[in-house]
Amino acid sequence: MRANHLEDYFQFLRFPSISTDDQYTDNVAECAHWLVEKLTAIGLETKLVPTPGHPVVWAKNKHQPGRKTVMIYGHYDVQPPDPLELWDSPPFEPVLKNGYVFARGSTDNKGQILSHILGVQETLEQSGDLPVNLHFVIEGEEEIGSGSLPQFLTENRDALRSDIAVVSDTGMIARGKPTLSYGLRGVTALELKITAARIDLHSGVYGGSVANPITALARLLATMHDADGHVAIEGFYDQVLPLEDWEREAWRKLPIDADKEILQETGAPALFGEKGYSTLERIWGRPTAEINGIGGGYQGMGTKTVIASHAMAKVTFRLVPDQDGAEILRVAHLHLEKHLPPGVTMEITDGHSGPWYRTDPHSKFGEAALRALQTAFKKEPAVIREGGSIPIISEFRKILGVETLLLGLALPDCRAHSPNENFPVENLEAGIRLNKAVLQELAR
Amino acid sequence: MRANHLEDYFQFLRFPSISTDDQYTDNVAECAHWLVEKLTAIGLETKLVPTPGHPVVWAKNKHQPGRKTVMIYGHYDVQPPDPLELWDSPPFEPVLKNGYVFARGSTDNKGQILSHILGVQETLEQSGDLPVNLHFVIEGEEEIGSGSLPQFLTENRDALRSDIAVVSDTGMIARGKPTLSYGLRGVTALELKITAARIDLHSGVYGGSVANPITALARLLATMHDADGHVAIEGFYDQVLPLEDWEREAWRKLPIDADKEILQETGAPALFGEKGYSTLERIWGRPTAEINGIGGGYQGMGTKTVIASHAMAKVTFRLVPDQDGAEILRVAHLHLEKHLPPGVTMEITDGHSGPWYRTDPHSKFGEAALRALQTAFKKEPAVIREGGSIPIISEFRKILGVETLLLGLALPDCRAHSPNENFPVENLEAGIRLNKAVLQELAR
Repeated sequence: MRANHLEDYFQFLRFPSISTDDQYTDNVAECAHWLVEKLTAIGLETKLVPTPGHPVVWAKNKHQPGRKTVMIYGHYDVQPPDPLELWDSPPFEPVLKNGYVFARGSTDNKGQILSHILGVQETLEQSGDLPVNLHFVIEGEEEIGSGSLPQFLTENRDALRSDIAVVSDTGMIARGKPTLSYGLRGVTALELKITAARIDLHSGVYGGSVANPITALARLLATMHDADGHVAIEGFYDQVLPLEDWEREAWRKLPIDADKEILQETGAPALFGEKGYSTLERIWGRPTAEINGIGGGYQGMGTKTVIASHAMAKVTFRLVPDQDGAEILRVAHLHLEKHLPPGVTMEITDGHSGPWYRTDPHSKFGEAALRALQTAFKKEPAVIREGGSIPIISEFRKILGVETLLLGLALPDCRAHSPNENFPVENLEAGIRLNKAVLQELAR
Repeated sequence: MRANHLEDYFQFLRFPSISTDDQYTDNVAECAHWLVEKLTAIGLETKLVPTPGHPVVWAKNKHQPGRKTVMIYGHYDVQPPDPLELWDSPPFEPVLKNGYVFARGSTDNKGQILSHILGVQETLEQSGDLPVNLHFVIEGEEEIGSGSLPQFLTENRDALRSDIAVVSDTGMIARGKPTLSYGLRGVTALELKITAARIDLHSGVYGGSVANPITALARLLATMHDADGHVAIEGFYDQVLPLEDWEREAWRKLPIDADKEILQETGAPALFGEKGYSTLERIWGRPTAEINGIGGGYQGMGTKTVIASHAMAKVTFRLVPDQDGAEILRVAHLHLEKHLPPGVTMEITDGHSGPWYRTDPHSKFGEAALRALQTAFKKEPAVIREGGSIPIISEFRKILGVETLLLGLALPDCRAHSPNENFPVENLEAGIRLNKAVLQELAR
């Protein structure tokens, strides 16, 4: 590994490019500028494309007729780092420890997209040319739903026309074990706010007279699941396709003990989820309803005897084929309205949505990707689905008519979206090798 | 109303004597010193008694044998003023508007205890003596559970021996309507923390594999009540004495439309509470379980797709005769443990406790108080119980063997514990008249 590769990586990680928080808009822009400079420096024709939100970085080599065209997609924005107090080192001051780099975005997605950039850099340095026509499309809104990218894709549909897309933003099932993901879950979000009184009330003076919005919220949220972990929203599973037999079998045969690993990674006292499915099946092939945040009343030290005026919760649903986000929000609204306890009012705000994705891992390009993974890692690749969401992948299909190969480099314990997110330097190196190999294989 | 009375009041209110927050310890002490000076200036022998917490201010006149001894209790500490942004004027810069003084502590309890001090001042100025032997005991820890006062009472038990205690820290049922409260609810508190994973998890990568602690917390809290607002904790009502017929009848006949007033004061869309009881019965005579605060996961702007590591809730129970705080905590623990959903762990921390209080409004001293209220307000007094808690009242009985007359001056819309707390100047004046009358009546 070249020292200046690591320098590039650290520079990239130092930008707090948090797309969800307006306070960081300038940092997001600075990060995009840095990418433009980097991609220009390695010899690509690079543009910073403004959008209503954060800009898209678009780079390409000199295209030649008769070659395959490959689009490599990634994102330079990151999740917020909180809770800050749980980080062992500051999230935007990367440190290298025992072969791992710790920083927000180290895995998701800066390490992974950078390995492709560095792979292209090495190929260009070594041979002066790439075997394919290449587009890099690197956006700044992935963590907030890629709101501006569809318009960018639509406006540049002809210029971006590609044979295949490559994305490294998914996981490897184990360290050193290359992994092709052929499916992703979708996601859709809502926030609900329950209000009773106009102001916080003294719980002695008023307790017993009006509804407590926190109690009402808890009662409402408790109706979203049954005791076995099934989502209890009427119609929630109506569009869900059953898992196919070959998938369930292939996943059972994977050379990992997923249950044990997840218990170790999470430290949870036990596994828990929808009855009737294995843990991997629940994550990769079944939808969920998760409360991502809740708040109301007094959360400080000690006691404050108030009945809060309001309480709120943030909810996301992970979706699987053939669930439709809008339909899920519709049935969720109906459910919440039907089960709203008395004495309170409710406001629901819908959040961002993104569809699930599934492609054929054994297509011509799928097979090329599997060979490239074998070359880069010297091991037989695993073929899996994933629990996360990259909604924009479906837009690639819809707008550009292109399928996507998901060649992820994230390890199970990478802590993406959590404190102490990390990425091993060996995966940065493997990513560089993978980029070279996959461009070669796709060119064939 | 003398101008210098109002000046005293404003000076008293300007101290941010917030007992719960260490940052304000000096302000609490300065407020106590101001009281010592004021009480000394009107001719009482005054001591500042240090405690492990905030000091007690203790003042007395020259006691004479054969006279009744009266202890007037109050507190100079106040609740925190947050949320600050909801105040129309700064909480510690009192303003007089349309006959009302707005400031934290204006009602609870500075306005009320000061009216007694000013009453004593006027009597001493007018006649050079009081009709009774008097103790003022004014503490600085009422809002945090009066932790140091029992020891003060115990250590000074003989010196403090009194025939009756008078406290103005409760409410009037309406403006101009004098009110004797003969009962208070008790309170006991606990905080629970539900933990699943050791860290926040990506809800795509892990969603479906481990329990969501917010969901678990919501499901657990939802078991605390039934749909009709009854507390569903087994044994919770076992010690509750039924309301007496005369109470229910007296409360029904009160010249107020409590339901309408509470709806107006709170702005709640509807009243809600335990079925089978009127609103006043629920507040004054029935116990409650209120969630005062809840928190977990991401509460900022937008969406963060995490499964939180943990979530917490703060719960208080309001108690009525003959419920015992320790017993209620015991059955609450049992309930929470029994209903804890799978896949998570729980930690419960018990908070402060204080007993309920009930005395006989038609005792000799009760009748004296009713006559004094009639004299001061020129209206027939209402005889009620209250929903709030003043746990120390029970200690007066236990340690000093003395009953307490609750002659409150707080109006229903005084916003104690809330933004824009206020107290009408006419109640400061009425309190002065009440103090003179009640000392006269008790002396008889």
